Amino acid sequence: MTEGNDQVRQSPLAGPADALEPAAGEAMMTLIRRLYPICRSITGNGVRQSLDIIQELIPLRRHEIPTGTRIFDWEIPREWNIRDAGIRDMSGRRLVAFQNHTLHVLNYSVPVRKRISREELRGHLFTLPDHPDWIPYRTSYYKEDWGFCLAHNQLSRLTDAFYDIEIDSSLAHGSLTLAECVIPGQTEEEVLLSAHLCHPSLCNDNLSGLAVQAYLLRWLASEPRRYTYRAVFAPGTIGSLAWLWLNRKRLHAVRAGLVLTGVGDRGGFTYKRSRRGDAMIDRIVVRALQDEAGPSTVRDFSPYGYDERQYCSPGFDLPMGRLSRTPFGEYPEYHTSADDPDFVSAGQLQGALALCQRVVRYLEHNRIWRNLSPYGEPQLGKRGLYGAVGGAGGPDQQRMAMLWLLNLADGTRSLLDIADRAEIAMDVLMDAAERLERVGLLKNQSVQGSGLNVE
Amino acid sequence: MTEGNDQVRQSPLAGPADALEPAAGEAMMTLIRRLYPICRSITGNGVRQSLDIIQELIPLRRHEIPTGTRIFDWEIPREWNIRDAGIRDMSGRRLVAFQNHTLHVLNYSVPVRKRISREELRGHLFTLPDHPDWIPYRTSYYKEDWGFCLAHNQLSRLTDAFYDIEIDSSLAHGSLTLAECVIPGQTEEEVLLSAHLCHPSLCNDNLSGLAVQAYLLRWLASEPRRYTYRAVFAPGTIGSLAWLWLNRKRLHAVRAGLVLTGVGDRGGFTYKRSRRGDAMIDRIVVRALQDEAGPSTVRDFSPYGYDERQYCSPGFDLPMGRLSRTPFGEYPEYHTSADDPDFVSAGQLQGALALCQRVVRYLEHNRIWRNLSPYGEPQLGKRGLYGAVGGAGGPDQQRMAMLWLLNLADGTRSLLDIADRAEIAMDVLMDAAERLERVGLLKNQSVQGSGLNVE
Amino acid sequence: MTEGNDQVRQSPLAGPADALEPAAGEAMMTLIRRLYPICRSITGNGVRQSLDIIQELIPLRRHEIPTGTRIFDWEIPREWNIRDAGIRDMSGRRLVAFQNHTLHVLNYSVPVRKRISREELRGHLFTLPDHPDWIPYRTSYYKEDWGFCLAHNQLSRLTDAFYDIEIDSSLAHGSLTLAECVIPGQTEEEVLLSAHLCHPSLCNDNLSGLAVQAYLLRWLASEPRRYTYRAVFAPGTIGSLAWLWLNRKRLHAVRAGLVLTGVGDRGGFTYKRSRRGDAMIDRIVVRALQDEAGPSTVRDFSPYGYDERQYCSPGFDLPMGRLSRTPFGEYPEYHTSADDPDFVSAGQLQGALALCQRVVRYLEHNRIWRNLSPYGEPQLGKRGLYGAVGGAGGPDQQRMAMLWLLNLADGTRSLLDIADRAEIAMDVLMDAAERLERVGLLKNQSVQGSGLNVE
Repeated sequence: MTEGNDQVRQSPLAGPADALEPAAGEAMMTLIRRLYPICRSITGNGVRQSLDIIQELIPLRRHEIPTGTRIFDWEIPREWNIRDAGIRDMSGRRLVAFQNHTLHVLNYSVPVRKRISREELRGHLFTLPDHPDWIPYRTSYYKEDWGFCLAHNQLSRLTDAFYDIEIDSSLAHGSLTLAECVIPGQTEEEVLLSAHLCHPSLCNDNLSGLAVQAYLLRWLASEPRRYTYRAVFAPGTIGSLAWLWLNRKRLHAVRAGLVLTGVGDRGGFTYKRSRRGDAMIDRIVVRALQDEAGPSTVRDFSPYGYDERQYCSPGFDLPMGRLSRTPFGEYPEYHTSADDPDFVSAGQLQGALALCQRVVRYLEHNRIWRNLSPYGEPQLGKRGLYGAVGGAGGPDQQRMAMLWLLNLADGTRSLLDIADRAEIAMDVLMDAAERLERVGLLKNQSVQGSGLNVE
Repeated sequence: MTEGNDQVRQSPLAGPADALEPAAGEAMMTLIRRLYPICRSITGNGVRQSLDIIQELIPLRRHEIPTGTRIFDWEIPREWNIRDAGIRDMSGRRLVAFQNHTLHVLNYSVPVRKRISREELRGHLFTLPDHPDWIPYRTSYYKEDWGFCLAHNQLSRLTDAFYDIEIDSSLAHGSLTLAECVIPGQTEEEVLLSAHLCHPSLCNDNLSGLAVQAYLLRWLASEPRRYTYRAVFAPGTIGSLAWLWLNRKRLHAVRAGLVLTGVGDRGGFTYKRSRRGDAMIDRIVVRALQDEAGPSTVRDFSPYGYDERQYCSPGFDLPMGRLSRTPFGEYPEYHTSADDPDFVSAGQLQGALALCQRVVRYLEHNRIWRNLSPYGEPQLGKRGLYGAVGGAGGPDQQRMAMLWLLNLADGTRSLLDIADRAEIAMDVLMDAAERLERVGLLKNQSVQGSGLNVE
Repeated sequence: MTEGNDQVRQSPLAGPADALEPAAGEAMMTLIRRLYPICRSITGNGVRQSLDIIQELIPLRRHEIPTGTRIFDWEIPREWNIRDAGIRDMSGRRLVAFQNHTLHVLNYSVPVRKRISREELRGHLFTLPDHPDWIPYRTSYYKEDWGFCLAHNQLSRLTDAFYDIEIDSSLAHGSLTLAECVIPGQTEEEVLLSAHLCHPSLCNDNLSGLAVQAYLLRWLASEPRRYTYRAVFAPGTIGSLAWLWLNRKRLHAVRAGLVLTGVGDRGGFTYKRSRRGDAMIDRIVVRALQDEAGPSTVRDFSPYGYDERQYCSPGFDLPMGRLSRTPFGEYPEYHTSADDPDFVSAGQLQGALALCQRVVRYLEHNRIWRNLSPYGEPQLGKRGLYGAVGGAGGPDQQRMAMLWLLNLADGTRSLLDIADRAEIAMDVLMDAAERLERVGLLKNQSVQGSGLNVE
């Protein structure tokens, strides 16, 4: 085989992830520990207190949507707040106490205070016989009800014939609270992020998503950006619906998006595709997971899950996927008191943040390039991009990246298209594109500051 | 994860197959036993007698096409009839007798009556050395010939030097007979069924197809129908060509079709795709076989086989597949006297009928639906379609069917498209669509009474 | 199943490959042995001498392109010629001598004659420690340098402190030489062949490609042809670029092409797809390899390799693949003195020639046919193309080929499309098409003498 020349300049490559703020993982853990004790729900002061804490890290714009407001097929419910709750035996001993754990109360319980028989009480208790030490998480948002969740082991201690129960809550006209953080870019095209904020003392679901989203925005603010990044912090279902309702006139600007949930447990990543299945975000995340080379799974869209159900409903059909580690319901700690701060870790949170940063880099660099010397291979040697003595050895990945770019950069393919065909990491191609651009062989074809033509 | 509510109403679902006439399998066996002794061929009174019996079950319109009529590249041959045939030894003992089995005569043998040497006779005998007790089935429609088929074991008894042979048949100007049964529907769009009627005393090939076709039509007559169903009972090749020739101006009405052959043996189903490969009938039958969950095989089209060769010839290219159990030629009893009434069973015939009924139901219900509340998920809970206490467990198949329908029913997808993507049985989706239509969330987009827009 | 009739006429089929000139393999070996001693490079008299020899077999049109001519991004370098070279020890003994092997000199070495220290000399020596008896092949076309390549075992004999080295070469204004051979066909549409001619005494790379190309052209000249065949004999990279530059206005005529390299070693075939990936040549070669049924591999295009890098650069994007046996770099003898006449064989060369002939036949016969009797199956029996006694056995490949052709020849499919769908060898279909054309059932739809409509 004849080659021009062979010695390849070793240029410093971008590492697997850009340098993070030192100990971002630990910082996220600190945030999670502060948010953990708060009793959140789909409305109420728990949401507001949580947003106060997040607002210490990033600028938030908050919305209060009054009870009774029509949101598409839904209606904002009455606001729920709770001060205390518990079960006392006849001796006045408190057997179950909200102050010990926010999960002890059926979320959205109506106020109740009375003495009832053990039998009647049993109809309002939720336990997990298979995990007798764990408290389950249960809700009743849209049907008026009350109840207590407790460890199955606690049941055996309920031997009295009567109990005094009290739930000191309120359900009243108020509002639903949500917030968004916007990091403007060069264009009005948007990348949408979303993490649900309604779960009480549960860490992976979803303090992990909230923490990664907050720290990703901090990092984004310091990076050059083509896209505008908008992040939603809102209660699940009714909260994301409310955000969609508020923004229904400007959803056309969304080019890509991610729902972030359950990203702190010990599992590998699971990406759930958008309803479209082959949107740019789907291909970018799949590429990023391949380039990271850790264990990961990609699943097709299904209409069951978190807020992707709303973003990907047929009337919106936004190009949004969902990033998680172990999928909900597939780990026993899910929706139980065992999803506590020990269940997530700084390292896993940092890994999730790094993956999100990689996805952002790929989105930002997914340009369309054009080879300015397309007739035959340009002579790389005279530009110092090719070794001198020919005949031996094969090309390394850097030279292959340059050859692939020159061959495929015909103004019709995005960098992602090229990465997928060449099976070369986007990072490596991004670096090669920059080197070829520097010597005048490659030109960015994308309309300046526009991502419109790269999907 | 946040859900609205969780308790699912258990609605009565359609069973795996609609209730059949009691003992339809036994009724089909009775029909087969009546048709079995008749000596059919591509023309002649055997065909007419068989149609007389079928006409007791369903209304038939019969056609007689005269000898010599040009049918595309073919010509209707002279009509063949046979009264008796046999081989006698010199002592007058009848060694081979048509009255014992219609297969004993080479089908379409010209008349012959003479004394011939054993050597000459041998040139006109057909046996199966590998199955010495079975009589083979052989024909010579287009080359004038005569012959006898017999058990290989009978050969050894032919020790005389000369034999008296007689075939009391006639080949004369007459006509080819075929029949069709039409069950009109709301539209003129047609589903075409076809079973060949030319084989003499052979049960699986094809009294089984004739029986299932007849009983499917009986059932169809009592069902509401969008489509018009037309079934052809005709001799193979020249008979289906004759039907195509008679109907050549109206074939554009055919939306889907099935050739029914060999559906009574003990094997699982084999579906052979249409020439198009991805016609609605192909996708419907594949879906029905998946939903039935029994052993089954799907094969691509090939231009060899039964009358699909004609229906799927390039000038017609009808969207017709072929439904069989064990494919022809892949069981040793094929085209031998071992394909007798014991080779087929009431249970297997009933199973084939049930599959055909499922296919019909799927064809009829393969509508395009539109979600009338496409912005976010509609609130199923307030309509009694969603449980009350959230947080535990996943959705059952009924709720998943509703969620998939709401997500994908955007006016561009048929129910079949949704079933294929959701991997949910059509039955379950049909039931869910009905429930959602009842509460006003789903609307049938198909033009009333038209299947035109669902392929 | 009903068939018309069953006895199939056995017609003489084309064999696996047309008869070759007797001992074409041996003739190719003779050519290789004559070309082997010549020291070729990308310019110089070695190229001209090699073309003189090839021109004894086929007519060549030669081009000389002067030093300094701009060729797209490149420039024709000064012409290199070498008379002698060697290393002598202080006793005057010649330790390394160009006359023993052309590989001993770093190809394109500038002239040098001096006494130097062992240490300085070591910086200009190339060996293969893993194969201590073999001489490596190294070049330095575009950076002025000099050097010697030798067996690693020879290094230990260099024990003197000083050596007299001499390279009696010249680098001067001159020209680059290339040649083409054109075998005109009925049309101006072209099939382009290319083999590189710059490697010195190396047999598989690429005297094998040159020999097969030359003998393929000899055979082509005696065959009826729709296509015009044009073969390029040129130095790698700069040579093929020069040919592209000379022909840049008429590349639109190229319908298919092959780069021929490394086709004489003991391995099975490796086909590398064109940049397009699904060009007619890609599908034809894949089909031919399947029909040959020997071990073979098909690889996707990559921008690294031989002259397909130039032909398939984005500005040209010609539909050209590359045919090799063991890919370059995947056998240890590659680019070493072990790639000598013993490394290739007459049998393997003949096999490569036979495959190329098969590819040519497939290209030439890849017509679009139309069934003139498309309504139902035509009656093959009355045309002597179908047996008489029906009922037994299945069809053989010849009859299946006829049935597939009649079914799919609807004026929209090439013979290749039919072969791929029917999974029948092109040879068998070509023969069947001819038989059906003879009886008036099939008509060639392709515009006379045009291959334009068959891709």
